[in-house]
Amino acid sequence: MAEHAHDGPPHGLFISFEGIDGSGKSTQTKLLKDRLPDAVLTREPGGSAGAEEIRALLLTGDPDRWSAETEILLFTAARRDHLEKTIRPALAAGKTVICDRFADSTRVYQGATRGALRGAVDTLHDVMIGREPDLTFIIDMDPAVALSRGLARGSGEDRFEDMGLAFQETLRHGFLALAKANPDRCVLIDGNRDPVAVAAEITVHVADRMPAT
Amino acid sequence: MAEHAHDGPPHGLFISFEGIDGSGKSTQTKLLKDRLPDAVLTREPGGSAGAEEIRALLLTGDPDRWSAETEILLFTAARRDHLEKTIRPALAAGKTVICDRFADSTRVYQGATRGALRGAVDTLHDVMIGREPDLTFIIDMDPAVALSRGLARGSGEDRFEDMGLAFQETLRHGFLALAKANPDRCVLIDGNRDPVAVAAEITVHVADRMPAT
Repeated sequence: MAEHAHDGPPHGLFISFEGIDGSGKSTQTKLLKDRLPDAVLTREPGGSAGAEEIRALLLTGDPDRWSAETEILLFTAARRDHLEKTIRPALAAGKTVICDRFADSTRVYQGATRGALRGAVDTLHDVMIGREPDLTFIIDMDPAVALSRGLARGSGEDRFEDMGLAFQETLRHGFLALAKANPDRCVLIDGNRDPVAVAAEITVHVADRMPAT
Repeated sequence: MAEHAHDGPPHGLFISFEGIDGSGKSTQTKLLKDRLPDAVLTREPGGSAGAEEIRALLLTGDPDRWSAETEILLFTAARRDHLEKTIRPALAAGKTVICDRFADSTRVYQGATRGALRGAVDTLHDVMIGREPDLTFIIDMDPAVALSRGLARGSGEDRFEDMGLAFQETLRHGFLALAKANPDRCVLIDGNRDPVAVAAEITVHVADRMPAT
């Protein structure tokens, strides 16, 4: 029963889900929301009206029109809006927030594509976001399986998926390194199993971290 | 005849114009462009296709939907795109760039509205922009006169003008302080004169800084 004293009075638990595309993140966020009907389910990029406007800049039109640097600034702008308008108010109202991707995705994707920019990503996060989830589930999965799932999904957001299996393997190792570097908030989950079994394990971890009421 | 060795081979001069709304900045950029027909005339926010998309987020719709922090990130994203797509290529081709507002505007406006964020503005600039103009004209003018000119212009971009005379005076002092703190690149120009007289003075300063050809 950890204490979470970020904003003074008792507040909700901020939970993020991370992992490569097709790892089952989104399925797991929905299964957790089914178990916690009062929770706020949200996702990045987006998750607030302003962040959705910025998301549209990032995910529609030619994605190559933005450099990695401009993209990081836009992702951080969207995250700031999401944090202010959706995440912080929900936590302050005592609600659990379940977020499909947060800052770790930016860290891992930029680390894999433009490693030299990882320092800039961290500086922007420290200066303009300054908040980590209380609990992060990193869903680990065989990239070959994840890739086939991701492409099958046809979400229209397969920019990263287009880069193929080797890239997914680089990302996977990025997420594994991140879990290892942040053992207090990150829980590594084996996603190569039945979604219901994965959800059961996640539920146990969440119950363990819930603030006492 | 200063040397400008930012990008290796001989390159053009990067000139910005700053000052409160209605100070005559835009008029002076156009008069200078008339004198230097090969120069690239541009402005912020905007100045490249991507930056114009971000400009639309900032200047259309309810401006209060963005916090100061999100706004700084969006301005910096637009500036990064403008620098990459418009300013740097022109300078590399040996062209003079005349820019109506650049990073100094963000510094002064945020300093006047949310002084505590000035450090964040500077950090973002250092990490993501890392480039100052070679020469900055700060057009100084009586705020009462500038305000009446600005409101009369009806540009539809009078968010800051709406804040009134006292705010314009705060901005004026911000620009004066900036000129004093950066004497190598900033030239303070008395804008309370006939635009042709102002343009003549600016032309002398530009000629003095032009790279030898």
